[in-house]
Amino acid sequence: VPNIYIVLVEPQMGENIGAAARVMSNFGFDNLRIVNPRDGWPNPKANDMSAHGLFVLEKAKIYKDVESAIADLNFVCATSAQKRYMNKDIISATEITKELSLQNENSNIGILFGRERSGLTNEELGLADKLIKIPVSNINPSLNLAQAVGIVCYELSKFKNFEIEKNHQILASKDELSYFLKTLDDNLINSGFLRNEKMRPTMIQNIRNIFTRAQLTEQDIRTLHGMLNSLKKMT
Amino acid sequence: VPNIYIVLVEPQMGENIGAAARVMSNFGFDNLRIVNPRDGWPNPKANDMSAHGLFVLEKAKIYKDVESAIADLNFVCATSAQKRYMNKDIISATEITKELSLQNENSNIGILFGRERSGLTNEELGLADKLIKIPVSNINPSLNLAQAVGIVCYELSKFKNFEIEKNHQILASKDELSYFLKTLDDNLINSGFLRNEKMRPTMIQNIRNIFTRAQLTEQDIRTLHGMLNSLKKMT
Repeated sequence: VPNIYIVLVEPQMGENIGAAARVMSNFGFDNLRIVNPRDGWPNPKANDMSAHGLFVLEKAKIYKDVESAIADLNFVCATSAQKRYMNKDIISATEITKELSLQNENSNIGILFGRERSGLTNEELGLADKLIKIPVSNINPSLNLAQAVGIVCYELSKFKNFEIEKNHQILASKDELSYFLKTLDDNLINSGFLRNEKMRPTMIQNIRNIFTRAQLTEQDIRTLHGMLNSLKKMT
Repeated sequence: VPNIYIVLVEPQMGENIGAAARVMSNFGFDNLRIVNPRDGWPNPKANDMSAHGLFVLEKAKIYKDVESAIADLNFVCATSAQKRYMNKDIISATEITKELSLQNENSNIGILFGRERSGLTNEELGLADKLIKIPVSNINPSLNLAQAVGIVCYELSKFKNFEIEKNHQILASKDELSYFLKTLDDNLINSGFLRNEKMRPTMIQNIRNIFTRAQLTEQDIRTLHGMLNSLKKMT
């Protein structure tokens, strides 16, 4: 079974962090990563709310940004309330188990949860392989952070009973992907392809999305680096 | 689609009631019934936590006991952490939609949630047609009340997209069932069948469970009353 990492991005309320840790432990998950918690760390309010999930908080790891929090992961899903985002696949929470069963059994898998009010930025969503949408009512679509973690962990816990197909290829880690994308950006800037500065951020994001969607293995990334080097020599 | 009623039995923390109302509204449910809330009603702490689910609290109904809270319902599920209880069917939370699809589309369906620490009493569990178990980890099996409501509502929301088979018979309301069971108890006491006072509560519970499991319609109950009257005349 792959390793599951729950990643809270800039959570504001300690109570929500504690409640998230509690419900993670309810469903048998204990790898919590927190990006830049507003009120610092450790957080007594988080501890108070965690009940018997305190051990999850005690082993939680703190990161300065999403990129570093997912650097060693192979497959990342981001929860999002949005209906559409840049051509990225959006799956329903119900489909998580099916989706993860397509990953290699030694994969490190992360699920990103955004800030209480504003969620994840488009750039952060862009780092994910898939988006997960929890289907909510239009009457009150705003789900509490710990409730969202609870529902995803509940669905993920079904995965443990899931038959995992063997021999799925393990994807490149996110830092390998990120290093390639950075190299590609630099080369495209140097080559003049991205000379329109106004359009540059959108173009970079679109290019990054193409390669993020491609589900690249380490070998794929080595190939792409080779292609890039080879193309550069042509000029 | 049947009408769904969420029934909180003697909840202690206003925060949990508010969070339950919020997550109910997230998944499109707004019929909340509360049995004997510890801190009275209305409860400002509940209001604070309900966010845009405040309207659920404002139309919530308060009852003095479980029996009166479910009197007009046709089919009742009780959430329980227990593995086995008195021969009653226990279904996993995942199976709720399948289970409810077997009920008549005009049924009033209730889901009972117990007290924060102690859950539901055996007598209260005895009133339910089915027990629902949310599968949790042995490491920390204690699920927050509002999280339990959230997961059940999340599963129930899938039901709305569920194809409901027509022509299922609507079950008798719980007060019709309850009146029959009371009549039966009285007759069995008068007849001397329940003369062993030490065993009496257990025997009554076992008898009640038989008839609760039987999924009786109004017509069934009329038949049973007729049988009972006829049998009495034999003596």
